[in-house]
Amino acid sequence: MSEALFFHAGCPVCVAVEQQFVQALDPMRYAVEVVHLGEPKDRIAQAERYGVKSVPALVIEGKPFHIDFGAAPADLK
Amino acid sequence: MSEALFFHAGCPVCVAVEQQFVQALDPMRYAVEVVHLGEPKDRIAQAERYGVKSVPALVIEGKPFHIDFGAAPADLK
Repeated sequence: MSEALFFHAGCPVCVAVEQQFVQALDPMRYAVEVVHLGEPKDRIAQAERYGVKSVPALVIEGKPFHIDFGAAPADLK
Repeated sequence: MSEALFFHAGCPVCVAVEQQFVQALDPMRYAVEVVHLGEPKDRIAQAERYGVKSVPALVIEGKPFHIDFGAAPADLK
């Protein structure tokens, strides 16, 4: 089982991506943690360490993939 | 089984996304067609009809999701 992290900010773009995209991942292989960056502020630093430049973003096996554009992590601080 | 289309242009960003991302989709639910826009030129029009503004992009159930940025379809014409 691989870990995946979905970083979002509750924006409409984020919600659409979560509903259509994150749900499409193979549940047999990926355990997805959904992280709302608007709440625990310390997770923003974690997202930035992974190289997340905008949300929504999905980190799979340590690599960040940015999907469409909702907001930049710096805007959420 | 839902259809998904992955549009790409053979760029390094596209290849990384295909290998890590498209492979992560649930094969029990999604049949993914991989379309290289550099080859059959008529597929660019199809991508544009789906609202694809850049590649790599994944169209799931008719909705486009742009992942990172490789190239714009217009650059491939």
